[in-house]
Amino acid sequence: MRSDYLLGNNGLNNISFFSPVQDGLQETEALVRSQSYGAHPDLGAALEHLLSSGGKRIRPALALLVGQMLGAPRDKITTLAAAVELLHNATLVHDDLIDGALLRRGNPTLNARWTPPATVLTGDFIFARAAKLAADTDHLPLMKLFAETLAVIVNGELTQLFSARGLTSRENYYKRIYAKTASLIEMTTRTSAMISPVDESVIESMRVYGYNLGMAFQIVDDVLDFTGEQAEVGKPVGSDLLQGLVTLPAIYYAEAHPDDPDVICLTSGCYSEHERMERLVLAVGKSSGVKKSLEEAEGYIRKALHPLEGMPDCIERQALHDLARYIVTRKI
Amino acid sequence: MRSDYLLGNNGLNNISFFSPVQDGLQETEALVRSQSYGAHPDLGAALEHLLSSGGKRIRPALALLVGQMLGAPRDKITTLAAAVELLHNATLVHDDLIDGALLRRGNPTLNARWTPPATVLTGDFIFARAAKLAADTDHLPLMKLFAETLAVIVNGELTQLFSARGLTSRENYYKRIYAKTASLIEMTTRTSAMISPVDESVIESMRVYGYNLGMAFQIVDDVLDFTGEQAEVGKPVGSDLLQGLVTLPAIYYAEAHPDDPDVICLTSGCYSEHERMERLVLAVGKSSGVKKSLEEAEGYIRKALHPLEGMPDCIERQALHDLARYIVTRKI
Repeated sequence: MRSDYLLGNNGLNNISFFSPVQDGLQETEALVRSQSYGAHPDLGAALEHLLSSGGKRIRPALALLVGQMLGAPRDKITTLAAAVELLHNATLVHDDLIDGALLRRGNPTLNARWTPPATVLTGDFIFARAAKLAADTDHLPLMKLFAETLAVIVNGELTQLFSARGLTSRENYYKRIYAKTASLIEMTTRTSAMISPVDESVIESMRVYGYNLGMAFQIVDDVLDFTGEQAEVGKPVGSDLLQGLVTLPAIYYAEAHPDDPDVICLTSGCYSEHERMERLVLAVGKSSGVKKSLEEAEGYIRKALHPLEGMPDCIERQALHDLARYIVTRKI
Repeated sequence: MRSDYLLGNNGLNNISFFSPVQDGLQETEALVRSQSYGAHPDLGAALEHLLSSGGKRIRPALALLVGQMLGAPRDKITTLAAAVELLHNATLVHDDLIDGALLRRGNPTLNARWTPPATVLTGDFIFARAAKLAADTDHLPLMKLFAETLAVIVNGELTQLFSARGLTSRENYYKRIYAKTASLIEMTTRTSAMISPVDESVIESMRVYGYNLGMAFQIVDDVLDFTGEQAEVGKPVGSDLLQGLVTLPAIYYAEAHPDDPDVICLTSGCYSEHERMERLVLAVGKSSGVKKSLEEAEGYIRKALHPLEGMPDCIERQALHDLARYIVTRKI
């Protein structure tokens, strides 16, 4: 499952780190909506569905905050923010189709309402519009990074698809969450710096911020999968493990309890024994694996905050700081 | 069905219009293959499968011929040719999944050998690599055209998917074949001129050449669907009509025989009556609709050849001329 939750479109609008970019987010949304002009009406309906399904808009907010902080031209920031949000949504559309997921953020997925062929093509169309917007920033290195990041995300998904389910190493886990989540967030903050009038060291600082934020974001996501309430996170507790996807809290639990029969079962690949896996979900949720994982996320956040210190002192920097703190304290 | 046929990888190598670009095609193929380096091994296998499945390589050949004729830098031409071939293959991979096609060019599709999720992601990966190569040409307007063309192709497929089957107007037919085939061929010859040291009028000439070539190409394809032999074209005769997709020869036939009970049946949408449709396939194949369609294709080819006259007199121009002639005289 991806790092998105049940949350209304405006669910985070009152949180302080969104306030410097309220206008920018509205402009971004308008630009996203306009991408279906002239295309088949059902594509407009699909974009509308995706927009109204909510999602935190953390990626466009990051693009806007970094760009505003560093003095990028307003139109380029908005274009980049829309491109990133569309790329993210295109991968989600195909992802939901692949998972056979019927709900995302508590709302029906496109997949639940459309035929698979229409869903494949809608994802492709959104990719195409994302690529066009990325090109509209008139920045070739950005365009290349954009294409490379898509390749990293898709390669990660394919690797996950082709890998045997069951216990995995921490190393593989980090690779997976980089491809799945951190790569796009890293690209977002990095490219937003790239369109700004700043030197290479600032671009690198913003890349480091995004990378660490993204890693922490997915680890917390994976913790909440064990500790969250279904009503809050919009999916069943332990849904990853129940599908045989082993995340950091479970890896820590397995390391600490190698003789637990359910862990042995997981190692040998029998994750399809539902009762065992449900028991394991409860055990992991109460274990020190949760705390250890959150400590790791905290470590990533510290590494994210460090490069912020050298940035201009402004409300956007404060917002980027608050956003990073929110990542590890959130409950949904 | 798309405009590709049963033809070994080297099936056209002895045809004169490929000879000026033999080396370029080999370099292009190597570049395409290299796109899976560092990615999951199965992606390499997928690219290998697509390359070895054959296909005429008409799009990369066009990119190479135009670029060589107009003096574009060699590395950029090869990069563009590989980008175009990958974009084409990515759309084919998703297209085969959508059609549920198990054979293309007489070979098993990726879809026949892989699961649908793996096929969706493989198509996405190929899109990503195509976009990266397009960006590697370091030419922003090219990149934008590339993204826009993908949107046109996908929007065309979605429109076809959402449209009622059965009889359509000639106007809709032209729109459909533009999106399906001519848009990419037009983009190929246009962008190859864009990376060359030539002025706008030459770029426009090459766009006109590609557009008309593409329209003729698809019309002839649609004719061959009625007149070709299954063993030659690699799919059952009349396969489009049997699936309810009405192409130019059938539109002409219907215009000439409005009272034919099978035409009336088609108009009212009962294309699923297989026996009627098989009879209609035979009737269309013997009708003047075939000749009229070929005359139209001839008309497009004349319009394609006209702008060639102003180009430098060289073997590439002759090859572009021969290729256009081949489009309307080919039997497969």
